[in-house]
Formats: sequence, structure tokens, C-alpha cells
Amino acid sequence: MVKKVGVAILGLGVVGGGTYQTLVDHHDFYLKTQRADITVEAVLDKSTERLDVLGIPNEKRAGSIDEIVNNPAVKIVVETIGGVGVAKAFVIAALEHGKTVVTSNKELICKHSHELEAIAKKHGCGLYFEASCVGGVPIIRTLLDGVQANHIQKMMGIVNGTTNYILTKMANEGADYADTLKEAQRLGYAEFDPTNDVEGFDSMYKLSILSSMAFHTKVPHANIYREGISKISGKDIAFGKELGYTLKLLAIGKNTDKGIEVRVHPTFIDDSHPLASVNDSFNAVYLTGDAVDDIMLYGRGAGALPTASAVVSDVIYAATHSEIKYSTFKNTEKADRKTKFVSDFESAYYLRLSVDDVAGVLAQISGVFGKCGISLIEVSQIAHKMNRVYDQNPNRVPLIIITHKTTESRIKKAVEKINALGHGEVKALIRVEK
Amino acid sequence: MVKKVGVAILGLGVVGGGTYQTLVDHHDFYLKTQRADITVEAVLDKSTERLDVLGIPNEKRAGSIDEIVNNPAVKIVVETIGGVGVAKAFVIAALEHGKTVVTSNKELICKHSHELEAIAKKHGCGLYFEASCVGGVPIIRTLLDGVQANHIQKMMGIVNGTTNYILTKMANEGADYADTLKEAQRLGYAEFDPTNDVEGFDSMYKLSILSSMAFHTKVPHANIYREGISKISGKDIAFGKELGYTLKLLAIGKNTDKGIEVRVHPTFIDDSHPLASVNDSFNAVYLTGDAVDDIMLYGRGAGALPTASAVVSDVIYAATHSEIKYSTFKNTEKADRKTKFVSDFESAYYLRLSVDDVAGVLAQISGVFGKCGISLIEVSQIAHKMNRVYDQNPNRVPLIIITHKTTESRIKKAVEKINALGHGEVKALIRVEK
Repeated sequence: MVKKVGVAILGLGVVGGGTYQTLVDHHDFYLKTQRADITVEAVLDKSTERLDVLGIPNEKRAGSIDEIVNNPAVKIVVETIGGVGVAKAFVIAALEHGKTVVTSNKELICKHSHELEAIAKKHGCGLYFEASCVGGVPIIRTLLDGVQANHIQKMMGIVNGTTNYILTKMANEGADYADTLKEAQRLGYAEFDPTNDVEGFDSMYKLSILSSMAFHTKVPHANIYREGISKISGKDIAFGKELGYTLKLLAIGKNTDKGIEVRVHPTFIDDSHPLASVNDSFNAVYLTGDAVDDIMLYGRGAGALPTASAVVSDVIYAATHSEIKYSTFKNTEKADRKTKFVSDFESAYYLRLSVDDVAGVLAQISGVFGKCGISLIEVSQIAHKMNRVYDQNPNRVPLIIITHKTTESRIKKAVEKINALGHGEVKALIRVEK
Repeated sequence: MVKKVGVAILGLGVVGGGTYQTLVDHHDFYLKTQRADITVEAVLDKSTERLDVLGIPNEKRAGSIDEIVNNPAVKIVVETIGGVGVAKAFVIAALEHGKTVVTSNKELICKHSHELEAIAKKHGCGLYFEASCVGGVPIIRTLLDGVQANHIQKMMGIVNGTTNYILTKMANEGADYADTLKEAQRLGYAEFDPTNDVEGFDSMYKLSILSSMAFHTKVPHANIYREGISKISGKDIAFGKELGYTLKLLAIGKNTDKGIEVRVHPTFIDDSHPLASVNDSFNAVYLTGDAVDDIMLYGRGAGALPTASAVVSDVIYAATHSEIKYSTFKNTEKADRKTKFVSDFESAYYLRLSVDDVAGVLAQISGVFGKCGISLIEVSQIAHKMNRVYDQNPNRVPLIIITHKTTESRIKKAVEKINALGHGEVKALIRVEK
């Protein structure tokens, strides 16, 4: 029996446009393979220009959200506007009219899924958001229906294409951050105001959604430690490379006996780690579960068609399943009272110091680490080996230190004490993840 | 509302034992996170020793399949026996008694899914087989509900852990096949009779299942070209490495205008391809869809707990969804009449020749390729560069040739003609995939 389902699309930008094209181009394919007759019944966008470019017929162009939510032919509303203003109001209007909603909006789901899911439940309709995280990679479906047998213990993700493109280019070309950002903006990989991507907000929203699902409790974005890539120097990427490390902006979530630990920051990982080979605008999520062990999902984290793949896969799922299953995490505004969050987390660290090139300095610095209870894996004047002079002060040399695992509070105390020695200062502090 | 579901497990070997442990250990976790009260009600195995090791109480030990299928507390039957004899009979008995079946049995699903699904439909119960392919990696769920918006154009998988372990070890240690197989057998990575793994049967069953789902038509295993790794020489792995290639046993499926092309054989891929870094007993499937572009799923393809993760994820899915969705491919014994299979497929090739070390030979050989319409990418006496003597005949030298894409029939004709020249012979022919 063929299921007939009408779809409306709100916001015909990159993802909305890709969704429109995918649905139109694949109509007969879905009819044949999914026994679903899925048609776009209406679209809504303030720019008629975009609708013209996509060749959307006049009779499909709605004048208002009211027209859409009151159209009985529309069963599923796709929201690809973004942000939490108009998008939120439109999604609520759709749900209140009994329309199932499919959205690619990470900020909306991160901040308001508890409200939206409550409204969806009340009106008996679905709320799907595969496209909100990692583009075309089916990570939400995997967490819901693929690895749900597991206690997920750890998650590490490269979940933002813009920053991964910039870091890959900096690594390959030895370029500096500012130039690479400009190039990325020119090519359309970074926005005019890149803050949301480069300062880690986008990764933070996604980590909030993914860790809430993986750990079965709401992980509010306010609990996530966040640090972007804008202060990363090309030097540190080069030094790290020499020591066998690759720098990535990682979204890390851990669920241990001590509590939940969630953080987004530039991170060195071993060159041999599967995430180290995830380059350019590709994304990946690496999960560890107590039964499945390590698994990784890899693919395009952004772009019109890859993200449309996730949107349309949700549309097909909603069209072909009459049973609605709501999220299996407690979809609340805040975390469970019993949930503990670890803020003074443990990590290994890479430090780049600029120190006086005189005898005895190394002993003093090592002494500080010792007193702070931090053991060192490596102390290296790698710039010598690389035959490079990196320090602008001719009397100072760069010194690279890699520590064993310690805590944030200890490393910060050590940095303070080293700076107070008067023989140099810590120029870079980057976490190292095993 | 908590759903109460009783499970029976048939066959308490590696995967069945892992499934038992996972279900018992996670009972309270699933109650909390999935609102499902899943209990093991009965088990069946001819060996009481295994049941003793797992500490399974006497009252759960069934004496026959009849006891299990007539037990009203059993809603879901897990089949982890393997093979198509007893396993098939037991699965049919369970389905005919209205029990949903979850199986890890690739041979059974490859050869008999059409019969089993028909029986399941008739009796209104489900048939799930995530664990039949690639262990804990949710590739079946992804094909069904994650990338179903796409025309899947290409699939390349490392889907057998034993052969990937052997090839990785041969590459890392320069070891030869026979020794490495022995070592793998000693460590339990290869069976006493390794035929099923090393000759590619296991990969073939999995490719049949995965490509049937990806291409929405039955792809019988008889249509799959199959070649194992038992004739692979350590020399060729070493030469390939020198030229930037890694050797993997790939299961390849393509769906093009010319038809469906399915094959399992040792394959050189570029070192930079994400599949080249999938080592040891890890598995991965690399898919290309018309919307999602390239995605890869990576994880453990075998082992007690990783495979149990897939089995139990299916059990949870079946326990928490009352709606049953049958396969979206036409589940028939044979392919659609309209489906074309490409047997004379296109590929690039690596050839190792042993040729007379005299002037004019290279010209003659190049001439043969030219006459056969095959262009060459590389002709290399790489053994010289590597300072190694590989040929046992002192008057002959190894010559490596990499061709551009050509067809199977053309390359075979070229090999025949080269052997007929009387100046040497083709010692190895390995496909190269871009």
C-alpha cells in the first residue's frame, strides 16, 4: 500500500534548497523503493529569488506560515531556516496543527527540544532532527536504533566542517590562522562572521544534542566547556606534527563514574587515530560503547545535498512509520538532579614555552611540574631539530612539553608558577587526547 | 509504559554467549533508558558445558526447540547457531509460532531471507539481521533508515575480520600468507578450516545482503565474483606499498547505468583512502550515495560483545516498536528480471611479471598492452629500487605494471598473450580500485 504524504519546506537556503531538489528528483524512486508518494505541497521563504532559482511553481509558494499549517495536504513540515526566532515560532505552529516536523536546526534542538517534544507529544506528531548533527551521517539514528544496547562511555567528534577545513589547510600548507580563514571565507567554507563556527558554538550545540542522546540525560550547552580555534598558531600545528600529533577541534563527551564531562576545544590526537585522517570539510564521530567497543561514522558534515540526505531520510522515516517514538533521553530543560558534571577534567597537555636560553632554566621548569604533581612524557627543543627559529626574542627559545594525564586545575597552577619564574612564559596550552 | 519482553537464545557460542551476557548485565539499563523489561526466558544449546560457563540457571535451559516456541513468555527468538541446517529449521519454527526472530546468521539471510520473510509476514512477526553483517556496526539500520533517501551508487567494504587481520600482519611484518594464517589460527582469529573466511565466502554472503538492500533488488550470491586471499604473496603487498597502495580484501558493489556489479577480491587501494587505514580485525563499509556523497562506517566486525551489540540493538528495536516494517528490497529468491549484472567489469590492474632480463622485452610487453587497448600508468622495476632480488631464476627480473581502467576480458587476453611471448610470465594480477 502506497502512503501519500505532502511536505512543506520552510526556508529555501542551502539545506532547504537541497531538500527540495532531492524530494523532487527522487519522487519516483521513493514511490518504488519505499512505497511512499512524497510530494512537496508548499514552500515558504521571504526571498522569491531563491524560489525562482529552484524553479518552484507559483501555486506551491505559500504567503505565510498560516497557509502552510492550515493546508490539510501537508503532513510533514521541514524547517531549514535556522536560529531560534522565527524558526521556533514556525515549528511550534506546525506541531500545534498536528504536523510532524523535520528540522536541521541544531541551535533550536539544543536549546528548545524539551518544549518542542512536549508539544509534539501533546498533538501526536513526530519531531525528527537527524540533519541537526553531522550533515548526512546518520549519527542520531545510530544512537537511537543502532548502538542503543550500549552504555556509551566516550564520544569524540569532528562535527564542524569550517574549522576542520581551516585546521587541515593550516597543517598541510603551514599557513597561519588569519590567512586561512580569509581563504575559507572567499571559497564559501566560512561565513562573513565566522564566530559561530570558529569559536566552537556550532560544535557545542551538536555535542549537547549528541551527548544528551548518548548519555540518556539532558546535557545543557551551558555545561559544556568551549574553546575555539582562533588563537591557534601554525607553529603549534607544525611542532605537534613533528611529535606525531594532529590538531583537530574535537567535541568530547565522556560518561564515567565521576560524572559527565563535555568539552569542545582544539585537541592533539595521535596521527594513527582514525579521527586524525578526517580532513577538509569531512566530519566524523568516534564512539566507544561497553559492548560494541569503538565505532566511527564518517562523512560530509555540511553542504546542500549531504544535509538534505539526512532531512529526506527523516521525511521518509516519518512517512513510512505510523508509530512515533519520542526521544529515549529525558527531554528536560536541565539535567537530572542526580547527574554530576565534571568540570576539573583530566587530560594530557601540550605546552609551548618561550624560555631564556640559559643553563638551569629547564631544571626550574621541571621542578614546577614536579611540585604540582604533573609527570612529563616529553620535553623537547624541537625547533632546533627542525632547524627553525621561531622566537622573536633572540635570547629565548621555544620549548615543547607533553605531560601525562593531569587535571585542568593542576596544569593552570603550573602555568601560573612557570610564568612567575621570570625566565619565560607559556605561549600555548593545548589538550592531548588518547 | 514499560514493555515486558521475554527472549530465547538458540546457540550459546561466541555471539550467543555475548548476547546472553549483554542482556543480563544491561537489564536495569534497558528498563531505565528504553522502558523495556527484557529478560532471557530460555536458552537452547546441545553443550551443557557452555551453559555452565555462562552460569545459566537450570530452569532457563530448554530441552528442545518445541519447548521454546511453545513458551508464551518468549516473544523474541535470537538465533546464533550459524549455518543453514538446524538454524533454518529452528528459525522457521519460531516464526510459525509468531515469534519475532533476531539472527546473526549471514549465510541463512543471504540464501533464505525470501522464504523466511514470507513466513514472518504471514505470521505477523519481525525478522531482524543487523548482526549478520559487520558485527557491531549498524550498517543494516543505516541502509534502511539512515541513507534511504539516496540512490546508492557504490559500496566498498572490508567485511571480514580474519582476512583483514592476515593482510594487515602480512603488510606490517613482511610475512608470507601461510605463516600468518598459522599465527591467526593459533590466536583464534582464524578457524581450523579457514576456507569460509580466506576464500571470500563470508564476504560474499555479506555483500549479497548489503547490496540487495542498497540496490533494492535481490543480489543472489551466485552473481558475485569471488576470489580469496590464499594466493596472495607477501611480495605483492610490499611492491604495492612502495607504489602507494594498500591491499585489502574488498567486497565491492556498484549500481550503474550498465547494471549491478558485485565482486569480492583482493584489491589495491590508495594509501590515502579511508579504507586503507582500517587495520587488524576492524571492518568498515564505505558508501557513495547521490545525495550524501561518501560516508564510512567503521568498527569491530566480529567478536562476542560487538556482535552482541547488534543482536541486542535489534532485540530492543523489536521490543519497543509494535509496527513491523519488512525489507524495502524485493525479497525474492532471484533478482528482478529487469536487473542486469555486469560480469565483464572495469578495473585498473596491478600485474607482477617475471621477465627475461634482456633488451627489447619491455617493448614487446608494452606492445601487447597497446594492441589490447590497455593504457599503462606505471611500469616499474621496483625491486631494483628496493635493492631486493625476488626472482628465483637468476636470468629473470620482476616487473610491475599498473594499468588504467580496462575490462576483465581485455586484461585476461593481454595476460595470455604476454605468457605466449616466451620471455616471461604474469605471476600476479590484482585489481586496483580508485
